[in-house]
Amino acid sequence: MSNNNNHHKHSDIQETTVIFMPSGRRGQIPAGQSLLDAARQLGVEIESICGGRLTCGKCKVQVEDGVFHKHGITSSHGHLSPASSEEKALLKRLHSEDYRLACTACLHGDVLVTVPEESRAQKQIIRKSATERVIEIKPAIRKVYVEVEQAQLGEHRGDWGRLQSALADQWQLHHLQVDLPVLRRLQPVLRQGKWAVTVTLWHDQEVIDVQPGYEEGIYGLAVDIGSTTVAGFLCDLRTGEILATDSLMNPQVTYGEDLMSRVSYAMMHTDGLEKMHNAIIDTLNRLASSMARQANLRARDIHEAVMVGNTTMTHILLGISPTELGGAPFALANRDAMDIKARELNLRLHPGAYVHVLPAQAGHVGADNVAVLIAEEPYQQDEHVLIVDVGTNAEIVLGNRSWLYSASSPTGPAFEGAQIAYGVRATPGAIERVRIDPVTKIARFKVIGDERWSNEWQRGANVPPELQPNHLAIGICGSGIIEAVAEMFVAGILWPDGRFNERCESDRIIWEDRAGAYILATAQETATEKPILVTQNDVRNIQLAKAALYAGAKLLMNQAGITTLDRILLAGAFGSYIDPKYAMILGLIPDCALDKVYAVGNAAGDGARIALLNRDKRIEAQRIATWTHYIETAVDPDFQTEFVNAIHIPNHKDAFPHLADILPAVHADDDSSESNGRRRRRARTRVIKP
Amino acid sequence: MSNNNNHHKHSDIQETTVIFMPSGRRGQIPAGQSLLDAARQLGVEIESICGGRLTCGKCKVQVEDGVFHKHGITSSHGHLSPASSEEKALLKRLHSEDYRLACTACLHGDVLVTVPEESRAQKQIIRKSATERVIEIKPAIRKVYVEVEQAQLGEHRGDWGRLQSALADQWQLHHLQVDLPVLRRLQPVLRQGKWAVTVTLWHDQEVIDVQPGYEEGIYGLAVDIGSTTVAGFLCDLRTGEILATDSLMNPQVTYGEDLMSRVSYAMMHTDGLEKMHNAIIDTLNRLASSMARQANLRARDIHEAVMVGNTTMTHILLGISPTELGGAPFALANRDAMDIKARELNLRLHPGAYVHVLPAQAGHVGADNVAVLIAEEPYQQDEHVLIVDVGTNAEIVLGNRSWLYSASSPTGPAFEGAQIAYGVRATPGAIERVRIDPVTKIARFKVIGDERWSNEWQRGANVPPELQPNHLAIGICGSGIIEAVAEMFVAGILWPDGRFNERCESDRIIWEDRAGAYILATAQETATEKPILVTQNDVRNIQLAKAALYAGAKLLMNQAGITTLDRILLAGAFGSYIDPKYAMILGLIPDCALDKVYAVGNAAGDGARIALLNRDKRIEAQRIATWTHYIETAVDPDFQTEFVNAIHIPNHKDAFPHLADILPAVHADDDSSESNGRRRRRARTRVIKP
Repeated sequence: MSNNNNHHKHSDIQETTVIFMPSGRRGQIPAGQSLLDAARQLGVEIESICGGRLTCGKCKVQVEDGVFHKHGITSSHGHLSPASSEEKALLKRLHSEDYRLACTACLHGDVLVTVPEESRAQKQIIRKSATERVIEIKPAIRKVYVEVEQAQLGEHRGDWGRLQSALADQWQLHHLQVDLPVLRRLQPVLRQGKWAVTVTLWHDQEVIDVQPGYEEGIYGLAVDIGSTTVAGFLCDLRTGEILATDSLMNPQVTYGEDLMSRVSYAMMHTDGLEKMHNAIIDTLNRLASSMARQANLRARDIHEAVMVGNTTMTHILLGISPTELGGAPFALANRDAMDIKARELNLRLHPGAYVHVLPAQAGHVGADNVAVLIAEEPYQQDEHVLIVDVGTNAEIVLGNRSWLYSASSPTGPAFEGAQIAYGVRATPGAIERVRIDPVTKIARFKVIGDERWSNEWQRGANVPPELQPNHLAIGICGSGIIEAVAEMFVAGILWPDGRFNERCESDRIIWEDRAGAYILATAQETATEKPILVTQNDVRNIQLAKAALYAGAKLLMNQAGITTLDRILLAGAFGSYIDPKYAMILGLIPDCALDKVYAVGNAAGDGARIALLNRDKRIEAQRIATWTHYIETAVDPDFQTEFVNAIHIPNHKDAFPHLADILPAVHADDDSSESNGRRRRRARTRVIKP
Repeated sequence: MSNNNNHHKHSDIQETTVIFMPSGRRGQIPAGQSLLDAARQLGVEIESICGGRLTCGKCKVQVEDGVFHKHGITSSHGHLSPASSEEKALLKRLHSEDYRLACTACLHGDVLVTVPEESRAQKQIIRKSATERVIEIKPAIRKVYVEVEQAQLGEHRGDWGRLQSALADQWQLHHLQVDLPVLRRLQPVLRQGKWAVTVTLWHDQEVIDVQPGYEEGIYGLAVDIGSTTVAGFLCDLRTGEILATDSLMNPQVTYGEDLMSRVSYAMMHTDGLEKMHNAIIDTLNRLASSMARQANLRARDIHEAVMVGNTTMTHILLGISPTELGGAPFALANRDAMDIKARELNLRLHPGAYVHVLPAQAGHVGADNVAVLIAEEPYQQDEHVLIVDVGTNAEIVLGNRSWLYSASSPTGPAFEGAQIAYGVRATPGAIERVRIDPVTKIARFKVIGDERWSNEWQRGANVPPELQPNHLAIGICGSGIIEAVAEMFVAGILWPDGRFNERCESDRIIWEDRAGAYILATAQETATEKPILVTQNDVRNIQLAKAALYAGAKLLMNQAGITTLDRILLAGAFGSYIDPKYAMILGLIPDCALDKVYAVGNAAGDGARIALLNRDKRIEAQRIATWTHYIETAVDPDFQTEFVNAIHIPNHKDAFPHLADILPAVHADDDSSESNGRRRRRARTRVIKP
């Protein structure tokens, strides 16, 4: 690597002491070697792209002047070869005149140097999560600059052969494959770059791109393909920085809102799979282009993508029919991680780009859940952690460093606003927060797009603009219905079994044919000028959905033989909007200290991004995917019992000590049986038909 | 593999003596093991596709009855487990009632069995060549039958995971990759085959196909892409048999007859490469379909193709511009062998099929020449062998087991009928053989499509049908012009320097403006009813072409320091048609015993076929491609000298002792100088304008 390696051969080699800060690594290195060589021998990773050609300036280090008695070095001064005019010029361009380049500065004596953060090969970024976490930047692809021997008469290796030799000599890269599109570009690129090129490597195994001259930008894409939303992150693979994020609706919703209807669509239509596959590929192409544009790049600058999604989504992504996932035994075509050329999927990234799809765990626990796991790392914790990814199909994981159990629960689409009379998606105007006065039973609420509670604004021609609402209420979204039902229970409007309380007298409660309904927003507060109601049927659907989720969590706790949880993580875009307190009052999740329940956002997307930035996490994903013990809820005899108990708010059997101050004093069992015994119809003051 | 392996665990294992004929391999094997297991332990390769499932019947062996004292076995009788009814039924279906299946017959005592040829895993075919050669059948792809564990609830490996386990357990195949189209078909195929499938493997590394149930046919394609002709061979990869052969014109001739004009076309037109690439791909697709049809197969039954061609042809095949091959230093994009998915080239073979392109040696010596080498194996010979592949660009190799030199010589298209006044391609009616009476100077000839000499047939209304020609002469093809010029020289019509002999008096010689011409066929003998002539200019062009070839061969002999050759092989479709005697009289090749000069036919096509049938030959090809020492004729100072000497017929300097009885007594030098000194114009009896 260094042109000073020949000094080794001298018999009178002087040994020097070299210390690298801040790691403090030290050792004896023969004089004459470069600082970069010394760093490598001492296991200090210093960035270097150009390999000592004074092109990249990535290996700059600071030589510490002065006396370092505690390090056993008297001085660094004058102990390096003087900087050449080229080195000085490059450092000046980088505004780093007080630095040296490790690749060219050679040892003449003892030195102590500091490697600044930006020169460290293993960079780290901090990820905000339930626990702040450090991600080491170690992507599967990298760029190296290489100078290739010129073609000449009588030398027959060919351009690829000579490039291979150069990569072996200058970067110790051996047994490389070459992608056909690279071979097609190689000859003109080598000549355009005057025999100096930048090569993009995939896993140090395959050359996937070649560009003339020196290039350092390298970019990757992480995508979470949700049933409803496709979320993308465009990352700089050298810094870990997110350059752009974007999301699009999953166009497959046209073929079915939930997974099972899409599986049916694939089964019932001969071109069903093809249509849904083409639809998602088209969306991914639009997402990649739009994000690249945001970052002033082109989609062909993206050299790798990591994709996650539930098993139906990844099957369709790969063009594999999800038919088998539609019925027992729910056999996956493939559980393992896959690397596929993007072009094989008609994805228009760089022609040599690969797509890495994370592994799945089981028929109903996909790569998205594995991504959540590598993002949240419950397997690194001593505590018992429950992770709930709330969605149409909820994935639940429970465990710690010794064991992990997972399950999936068919919650249905109630949390996404479907099957709810006034349910809407989470768009501006959707009610997302609800508070009900326990005495008056009157609700105040917040809609998406307005930070104020509904009682802080007023509608009307004479109302000053600052008191007017940003948005009138248009309906109730998932987090809104959870809070509404929980607050209705706390306010005594609902019995623990979910029935409307006939004894509760309020103008806000209306009755029709024995079924109650609650006026959440008055006609005055809504865009339609008709009230928004929570009906008895809505409450039933929420009960069924939350019971499925709770029962799944409980099943895993029973399996593990534990009765309390140390920590609960709510994952998924939806999970982030749920107030943990109301999730617990509703009995969506088991009891836990409220300050130990966290919303961790799109943890699946985070996991995809982490796997994009760090190839070791892919190995971890593969290990965890098979290590996690999947419990089939559908066939577990306990599930039905737990489900029935969980239909009650918060639960028919389980205690919630952490909610002692919040839950109404009434005891579920007593009240329920009492109300069952003497059902009365009161407060049927008026009937409103929606 | 055998269900009897558990017998190993018994403490009272009895050892039996097992002898396999005809190899004579013998050893002690514990009783209870199957004959197939015994064979494997003793290194006897017995075919087995179904792995002991009584499906394929490939492992049948004959148990020799009687006493074999010389082998130390008293009897085989009753020393195997009795045949089950299933085994008997299968053997009956195979008309092999006196055989046993090695996979199920278990050892009870000493046995001597004969493995019939058809049951040997390593089959061989004999290839006719200069030396008869044995090709071991050892293709890169194979099929295995496997029974896969059924999908069931609570088992999460996925169908591919379970197939991998089955392949590991039943075939000791590990770390397999899977092609995406296989994953897409896997689930329906497994269920259609009731969990029994046949898997096609590429290099035991990648699963490239999966079919329901038991399938054994496996087919490959070998193609020689010549500048003019594309020749294909469809082979059964289990027997080595050629099922179909076909050839089509290379459609690139539209863009230029010779290589350099195609290189220019790619340089001058932005879509030039694309057009030529698409043209050859289209032709290869048509060739594959037509051959598959001939063999009652479909192109998608072809799982691998091996392709060879000169460097320009392989570059264009791969979609790589040949521009760099158009000028010094003639840099190849890639010299090494390549494996590419056929679908990446838009070749419509099996979706998982690979194309293997053999390596090249240098800018002007391509995979076709390497194919010639692995077919003829000069590196296995003690003798000095010269191999000449005659074409627009002739490749020449000289060597033996210690060294190989190669060169390419730009002979030009004269031998293919271009630049010859009456030149035509080798089609019916083309003159391919010529004899000239030394006294009368009258020629007789043979045309392609008629076994008789021209003096044995007669044209005319009154001639009986059996004496009529099959075809009248339409022109002269390559082998015809070589014989014509050589015979003209022997008959004294030409001086050794190629000039027409003014002293030679004959009606057959005509003169115009000092240039002679020879009437090869009279108006009576031709389809056009005009005579066919060999002109002075034709002779000059043939001299230049043959001199280039001879000088190349001579250069290699000089390099190697040898003056005589033990053996000459004429390769290429054209090489097969040349009469070695006339090639030598003309001075196309150096002196050699005439019975040691062989036409070896399309050796490049043979080499492609050999590499298709035997993967070890691919490794050999890669080794030989780099081991052969390429001589750049263009820059060698000796080349010009040798070329000038070789313009003379047969040569200005070199002696041809093996032609002593054939060559005219006149000494080249004397005659030439004499004729130069006193040039006379005689016999200008008539002038015929062509």
